[in-house]
Amino acid sequence: MDFGEPKIFLIYFSLAKTSLNLHPEKDYKRMIKITLPDGSVKEYASGVTAMDIAKSISEGLARKVLAANINGEVWDATRPLEKDANLKLLTWDDADGKSTFWHSSAHLLAEAVEAIYPGVKFWVGPPIENGFYYDMDLGSHTITEESLAQLEEKMGELAKQNNIYLRKPISKSDAINYFTQKGDEYKLDLLSGLQDGEITFYTQGNFTDLCRGPHIPSTGSIKAIKLTNIAGAYWKGDEKNKQLTRIYGVTFPNQKELDAHLAMLEEAKKRDHRKLGKELGIFTMDDDVGQGLPLWLPNGTVIIEELEKLAKKSELDAGYKRVVTPHIAKESMYLTSGHLPYYADSMFPPMELDGTKYYLRAMNCPHHHKVFGTGQKSYKDLPYRIAEYGTCYRYEQSGELFGLMRVRCLHMNDAHIYCSREQFPDEFRAVNELYLKYFKIFGIEKYVMRLSLHDPEKLGQKYINEPQLWLETEELVRNVLIESNIPFVEVKGEGAFYGPKIDVQIWSAIGREFTLATNQVDFAQGKRFNLTYTNQQNEPETPLIIHRAPLGTHERFIGFLLEHYGGKFPAWLAPVQVKILPISDKFMEYANSVLQTLKKADIRAEIDDRHEKIGRKIRDNELMKVPYMLVLGEKEMVGNVVSVRKQGKGDLGALSLDEFVNQLKEEISTRSSE
Amino acid sequence: MDFGEPKIFLIYFSLAKTSLNLHPEKDYKRMIKITLPDGSVKEYASGVTAMDIAKSISEGLARKVLAANINGEVWDATRPLEKDANLKLLTWDDADGKSTFWHSSAHLLAEAVEAIYPGVKFWVGPPIENGFYYDMDLGSHTITEESLAQLEEKMGELAKQNNIYLRKPISKSDAINYFTQKGDEYKLDLLSGLQDGEITFYTQGNFTDLCRGPHIPSTGSIKAIKLTNIAGAYWKGDEKNKQLTRIYGVTFPNQKELDAHLAMLEEAKKRDHRKLGKELGIFTMDDDVGQGLPLWLPNGTVIIEELEKLAKKSELDAGYKRVVTPHIAKESMYLTSGHLPYYADSMFPPMELDGTKYYLRAMNCPHHHKVFGTGQKSYKDLPYRIAEYGTCYRYEQSGELFGLMRVRCLHMNDAHIYCSREQFPDEFRAVNELYLKYFKIFGIEKYVMRLSLHDPEKLGQKYINEPQLWLETEELVRNVLIESNIPFVEVKGEGAFYGPKIDVQIWSAIGREFTLATNQVDFAQGKRFNLTYTNQQNEPETPLIIHRAPLGTHERFIGFLLEHYGGKFPAWLAPVQVKILPISDKFMEYANSVLQTLKKADIRAEIDDRHEKIGRKIRDNELMKVPYMLVLGEKEMVGNVVSVRKQGKGDLGALSLDEFVNQLKEEISTRSSE
Repeated sequence: MDFGEPKIFLIYFSLAKTSLNLHPEKDYKRMIKITLPDGSVKEYASGVTAMDIAKSISEGLARKVLAANINGEVWDATRPLEKDANLKLLTWDDADGKSTFWHSSAHLLAEAVEAIYPGVKFWVGPPIENGFYYDMDLGSHTITEESLAQLEEKMGELAKQNNIYLRKPISKSDAINYFTQKGDEYKLDLLSGLQDGEITFYTQGNFTDLCRGPHIPSTGSIKAIKLTNIAGAYWKGDEKNKQLTRIYGVTFPNQKELDAHLAMLEEAKKRDHRKLGKELGIFTMDDDVGQGLPLWLPNGTVIIEELEKLAKKSELDAGYKRVVTPHIAKESMYLTSGHLPYYADSMFPPMELDGTKYYLRAMNCPHHHKVFGTGQKSYKDLPYRIAEYGTCYRYEQSGELFGLMRVRCLHMNDAHIYCSREQFPDEFRAVNELYLKYFKIFGIEKYVMRLSLHDPEKLGQKYINEPQLWLETEELVRNVLIESNIPFVEVKGEGAFYGPKIDVQIWSAIGREFTLATNQVDFAQGKRFNLTYTNQQNEPETPLIIHRAPLGTHERFIGFLLEHYGGKFPAWLAPVQVKILPISDKFMEYANSVLQTLKKADIRAEIDDRHEKIGRKIRDNELMKVPYMLVLGEKEMVGNVVSVRKQGKGDLGALSLDEFVNQLKEEISTRSSE
Repeated sequence: MDFGEPKIFLIYFSLAKTSLNLHPEKDYKRMIKITLPDGSVKEYASGVTAMDIAKSISEGLARKVLAANINGEVWDATRPLEKDANLKLLTWDDADGKSTFWHSSAHLLAEAVEAIYPGVKFWVGPPIENGFYYDMDLGSHTITEESLAQLEEKMGELAKQNNIYLRKPISKSDAINYFTQKGDEYKLDLLSGLQDGEITFYTQGNFTDLCRGPHIPSTGSIKAIKLTNIAGAYWKGDEKNKQLTRIYGVTFPNQKELDAHLAMLEEAKKRDHRKLGKELGIFTMDDDVGQGLPLWLPNGTVIIEELEKLAKKSELDAGYKRVVTPHIAKESMYLTSGHLPYYADSMFPPMELDGTKYYLRAMNCPHHHKVFGTGQKSYKDLPYRIAEYGTCYRYEQSGELFGLMRVRCLHMNDAHIYCSREQFPDEFRAVNELYLKYFKIFGIEKYVMRLSLHDPEKLGQKYINEPQLWLETEELVRNVLIESNIPFVEVKGEGAFYGPKIDVQIWSAIGREFTLATNQVDFAQGKRFNLTYTNQQNEPETPLIIHRAPLGTHERFIGFLLEHYGGKFPAWLAPVQVKILPISDKFMEYANSVLQTLKKADIRAEIDDRHEKIGRKIRDNELMKVPYMLVLGEKEMVGNVVSVRKQGKGDLGALSLDEFVNQLKEEISTRSSE
């Protein structure tokens, strides 16, 4: 597992490196070949734009186009194409389409700010997970939550003008002149880090920004606007610098989607895993223990243990063996693995003991490689699958820690599979099937796998220099995904150092996206650790390694489940499965006998023995989201039955205790969500 | 849990602090009261010795007396008593009796060495777990394994002289004169650290040693002698110093016991957990991971998981809840707990992050206290029992690391019980019952609990200054032990800082002693962490805390089990429970169908599909100590049966597969050792 714990809350804005064609006239009139995603190739005159091509297909399509993917890079749909290219049109349904839309919305915000508050200076305004922000120096102006409505209105007015986003390459000296005249030292600071020849301006309406782009064709598609928040943000993230004002917003191509989004946010607030985690006694944080280091309370630990039971059973059935390895290791191991010095910043600092540096582990793989390396292995031992709920520790800046979503301690559903190339497709398919099995159990209906590939231009730098192995394993992975009918997108240049990887994105019941886990192919670590097996020709061979963690980490997954279920866990996961509510003390004896029967059946049950009215007891336990309540009074005691209330369904009437136990045991053993 | 991980391989020899009566004549003739262990009090003239008292009881008893416990301190049986005292006569059956016997044997060894190799200089010669050693500077002499027999003979000869061990207080200047004349700079070095007035010499035959004692009355009781080993040992344990020669030996009061001991050692060598651990694929150590940090291989992990299952089920039934807490915490927590700075040397060094020191935890209690402290607790929440297989890290010097017995990483079967004083006896009793339950499951027939008490003279220094609480809790613990009929010994001055503790000693099947676990009462940490609950009078009250770990650590316990079972684990613990041995490939299909049936029944089974003769397969799997082998050939396939071989019992004949599965499932679910 590399440092792929996904960073879902920030997408870094980077100004750089689009290859700028400075001499388009040279290629003018030449015909170029455009390959579409379905593999079809069409010829166009050089200088054609993605938008032209969209129009040549259908006007309806063209109206939806926001940007285009050209050979793996996102471009303006209106930018001329001068060479043969692979082209994919990007709409609102593509992540890159949305991202471009929000980036352009940030420019629209800046235009509105400048119109209302002249003289404001701008720093950067990137798209983020759900929307965008822009950091600015307001000077003598003040913007409050109350002013946001006015800004929204202005943005709407400017959007309706349907101004185009105009891209213009500009020389460094002209760019410097422009911002010197404008008096914006922040943009001048950005410019100082850029090379002449790689600089572009984007202009819409009366606003011009230094920007690498890309942008949507024009402001008219921005139909629904919500500015969500104002916050302070130190310039360049350094608290020694001036504090700028950050305005957050989100936009949509229609009002309906914005309304749905705001409703989802409202629901997400109610389902906030930090709020529910506290109310339901799932986890706590403590200043003396440290930030980002959750303590799992008894209720949270029940969920952990149920998840582990599920994982261990699934992995046992799938032929995994389990191992237990220490949480620390010597520096030498991480030098071998290559994590040091490369990832040192993401690791806890070393402990020096008897002159040797020991590191708290940030990943389990090197320890597992050592297990594989113990004792000679032959092809008969492969696939060798070893699993461990290994706890890892990673350094995250304190400002980036967030509830269970961004932590420093990670309990990981980890495993490594050592296999031959022939075995790889079946092994990789089996891992994907495990994902699908889990999605079904947890009622995860929307998911997508993001296949991250290498970038051939960065072989030997960002990617291990094995071009053939890259192509082979990428093809193997792609084929498995296609054959398994799994929805996926491909992203060039985001593979791990040692092989292609899959990031699994899932959507909670209220439609929020989470990055769950990664699934990686590794053809480098085996060599670094000198891992071999004797093949059928009696020769030593390096195994391929699959790193996988379908349930991700307890931290993130339980955080997800809290929101996904809104705290109303299905019976098999619920910390308390049944609460027994005697109407008065008179029925305590009966309540106790019911409790004993439930406990014997391995059902997690408790009695609510408070001296409260039954209505109060029901209300309180509903707040604790207990799946079943058994109300016990005269009628129940005499009839030797239990009156059952089910979470979300209300009164189910009276059942014999045996009947109830049998139904519930079935519900639990099948991990039903009904 | 304090740093009570017991150090069974070294007992430190300390020269110090016996209270020396410099003016015995003052009390002469006065009558003193001697209280015997049964509570009876007898009067004797001042100056009487323990040996006199033994003789006054019976000559037979007197012949067995090796030393005496006087008010909690071990004394020479021949040393005059001048004041009222509690007295316990010590024989070979007492640990302190044995220890004194071996200490005296070390002096006997020195006498023999001096007789054969004149001019040898001596450093220290302490008793250890099983015997004694003496470190010496041989000068120009050489002693080899072959010379040991000669030394043994000489020791036997000197022993037969039945020389008495004569204790003599001596002034520091006289002592310095003696060793200056003798030319022994090592003893002079020892002397330099001693105060005038606290120095004693012991002489037997022709040998005089600087020694605090105590010793047995005379050499005649040493009837059987074995010098076991020669090793190098740096002076004062510092590798910059000269290397001395260490001779190890063991002695007994009769030949029979020596023979039994040597046979046990021989068996222990075969059952060495390091040897078996490797052969059976239980664990491995790796230089790149670090010393004392075992990696648990798949077979060892099966055992870990079975132990955890046992513990979790037992704890669930006993009303424990489970928690999961991080392996690190900030310095501030350990300052609160008081582990820092006091125990810093036994902890890993801190990791400094954002200006804060984080420590790898060496104990789980502070984290658990934080869990108890989360949310207001009332008397209704007590007893609050929380359990965790918490992994701790402790710094042990590399020279002291030993297989699984002395490690730096400890997976601990830990729990803490927070209770009121009224609840304490029941809670403590329940913990002891858990111990007894485990002893039964693992066939541990011999055990003793060592109740470590405070020393009233060290209140406020070594022990928290709560004299009343000490007496109360010690009495509570003592009563529970007596009521539960558990064999125990009391040791003054060995309690934990925060309360009395019990160390549990167990003996393996071959009679070797292990320290398993500790069980501690704690009335201090609750206050330090400001832990309270609201009592029935609605007032805040500090709970008593029980620290307990009946299965100790995985490391030590599995090390013990490897020896205890000689690797022949009972079916429920065995990594592979059934090995299926097809006589030839012809029966592979049948073997596979048998395998599937076993797997469905959750039985850990494998097929031995090698192309080997059946005899070879049986032999090899016997070496792997698999509990059951199923031999499958023509007869079995046709008859749809399996031919069963049981570990240690041989051929059990043919059974239907159903019958075999049912029998084995019963054996596993009852955790039978039969």
